[in-house]
Amino acid sequence: MDDLEVGYDIPAAIGDSLDDVQTPALIIDLDAFERNCAGMRAKAEGMNVRLRAHAKTHKSADIALYQMARGGACGICCQKVSEAEALVRAGITDVLITNQVCGPNKIARLARLAKLARIIVCVDDATNVSDLSRVMTEHAVTLEVLVEIDCGSGRCGVRPGMPAVKLAQQVAASPNLVFAGIQAYHGSAQHIVDAVERRSAIVKSTAAADRTVGLMREVGLKCTIVGGAGTGTFDLEGMSGIYNELQCGSYIFMDAHYGMIRADDGGRVGGFENALFVLTSIISRAEPKRAVCDAGLKAHSVDSGLPTVFGRPDLTFVDASDEHGTIDDPGDTLSINTKLKLVPGHCDPTCNLHDWYVCVRGTKVEALWPVTARGKVF
Amino acid sequence: MDDLEVGYDIPAAIGDSLDDVQTPALIIDLDAFERNCAGMRAKAEGMNVRLRAHAKTHKSADIALYQMARGGACGICCQKVSEAEALVRAGITDVLITNQVCGPNKIARLARLAKLARIIVCVDDATNVSDLSRVMTEHAVTLEVLVEIDCGSGRCGVRPGMPAVKLAQQVAASPNLVFAGIQAYHGSAQHIVDAVERRSAIVKSTAAADRTVGLMREVGLKCTIVGGAGTGTFDLEGMSGIYNELQCGSYIFMDAHYGMIRADDGGRVGGFENALFVLTSIISRAEPKRAVCDAGLKAHSVDSGLPTVFGRPDLTFVDASDEHGTIDDPGDTLSINTKLKLVPGHCDPTCNLHDWYVCVRGTKVEALWPVTARGKVF
Repeated sequence: MDDLEVGYDIPAAIGDSLDDVQTPALIIDLDAFERNCAGMRAKAEGMNVRLRAHAKTHKSADIALYQMARGGACGICCQKVSEAEALVRAGITDVLITNQVCGPNKIARLARLAKLARIIVCVDDATNVSDLSRVMTEHAVTLEVLVEIDCGSGRCGVRPGMPAVKLAQQVAASPNLVFAGIQAYHGSAQHIVDAVERRSAIVKSTAAADRTVGLMREVGLKCTIVGGAGTGTFDLEGMSGIYNELQCGSYIFMDAHYGMIRADDGGRVGGFENALFVLTSIISRAEPKRAVCDAGLKAHSVDSGLPTVFGRPDLTFVDASDEHGTIDDPGDTLSINTKLKLVPGHCDPTCNLHDWYVCVRGTKVEALWPVTARGKVF
Repeated sequence: MDDLEVGYDIPAAIGDSLDDVQTPALIIDLDAFERNCAGMRAKAEGMNVRLRAHAKTHKSADIALYQMARGGACGICCQKVSEAEALVRAGITDVLITNQVCGPNKIARLARLAKLARIIVCVDDATNVSDLSRVMTEHAVTLEVLVEIDCGSGRCGVRPGMPAVKLAQQVAASPNLVFAGIQAYHGSAQHIVDAVERRSAIVKSTAAADRTVGLMREVGLKCTIVGGAGTGTFDLEGMSGIYNELQCGSYIFMDAHYGMIRADDGGRVGGFENALFVLTSIISRAEPKRAVCDAGLKAHSVDSGLPTVFGRPDLTFVDASDEHGTIDDPGDTLSINTKLKLVPGHCDPTCNLHDWYVCVRGTKVEALWPVTARGKVF
């Protein structure tokens, strides 16, 4: 870190006020973040299920360690071998890769990692199971394996029921693999805005998981882990009596899309608060009613919609280009250098754009956390 | 670089075959890239205009140096002070920031940079001009300044004509600022698919630039630089007799969106080839007709549309989630570990997601270029 310099590599220094932060920058409101972590811990404990927090949201060793130490997490999820490498090297000892790991190089990396920590991986293919078993045997390590079922998302995963049982039997019979349970994550259901429709999707996926676990039990296969659920639906899986590990990620930060998702009572799902912002500055006021800020597509991800402007319902973020955001300011309230806090449309890919979290308590920078696994996609 | 490791930090080693590259990875086809560079050089020379290649596309010192040494570039454009810092530190001595630079910290960084290289910046605000002049004077450096006009994009820039003249006069009268000309970039016109509509937009923006330059001449202000144009329209500005510096960026790589933009003859605009790909591997084949690859939103940007599969018109990339891409494979041709080359929807934000360019000649890795200014957004 010797040659890092504020402004070139780092957007702020510890002790700076929020006004001194160079923009655009990724900001964590530590009070809100800590309340979100405490809230999820209490909910998981109340439902008597484990929380295996998903690090794909934050890609940060600091946050993963906080989730383990203070947030009630039994372990961490991630999506890629390179993310797992970054987390294990940071001291996380229990990592589930909620994804398929294929190809000789990646499986060899997985084997090396399994010497250092408990590593669990998902499968949906018989040849992949054979490959994993062979390489783990060559490296003399043991790998835990979840059979992934497609419980409604139409992406990875074998069909629930007997196809899953058949693959689980193969895993159980494979040297150096341990059958650990099922992965039953309904990703697309997390983002269904309507509470009734969302519940209906999860009722179906939970039934598919239940049926599959039951069939496995009949052939003597025990599911130590029945895992899935995200921030949009975790209360449903958590109360189902079927799932025992929740894989929520976004709850720590929330985002503009999750802000639209309603709980049964019409409130915010889970009661979580916005704790993640992209701090931006106005750089152009050439026309009335229009302001241009310095946060475009390279500072926040628009795949799930445009950001909102926190605490400023009078302002509308109307367009993002590569390096600019255009804001409707009907009252002409903004000046050059005015700072705004954007709530990003989608937190996960937004965090992956930045190198640092600027962690703020009130208006003062309290910590700088590197986005440890930023860009670790392979 | 001592502790970098293939697989964890780098997707490949020099000499690897394409099949050994860990995916997803950003690939440059060096033959196509070099042809694109030579083609643009010849076109700019043929039109007798300068090329100031835009580094916001690639953020790479290696590519900027290549564009200067072999691609006919007189200098480099970028969008942020931190990008300029990265490029100047890599030996680029002539840098135009095609954007407004506001706020005391950033202006001070600009002043320090102006001690090391020719630095040019855009303005559209009188107070910003005063701030720039004061800080340059404090640092005893001179900064070149372009007045940006809004010539159709509706983003930054003063109105063409007298508002621009007035701001230019302020610049010319400001200590330690040198009025260098106008910035007249019509960003949104680059992406108009229809050739007639695109030409019509540029006819208007060129007329606005022409009128502004003429009015400036009448008050004794000479535009050393009349800059603008991108890959979609550079031939129009280049032949206009008004513009003398083209700011094209995407021509080196192209992308799926630029692939849809038609020249007058119905061919590809500029004749440029796809030279940038996201190499991806199939990781799931659980259902017939459907394959899932390992390149999602964190490996390529979908803001301008989904990627296409290079050389495989039978395949359709139908959905991107954070870490997965879903591909329609009606002929069931794909297997786990099959590698595909995706043409990203939008090259600039895609490059900004990766740490390395894996540069390939034929099927062999010839070079690894760091994405020098990746994530440098402030």
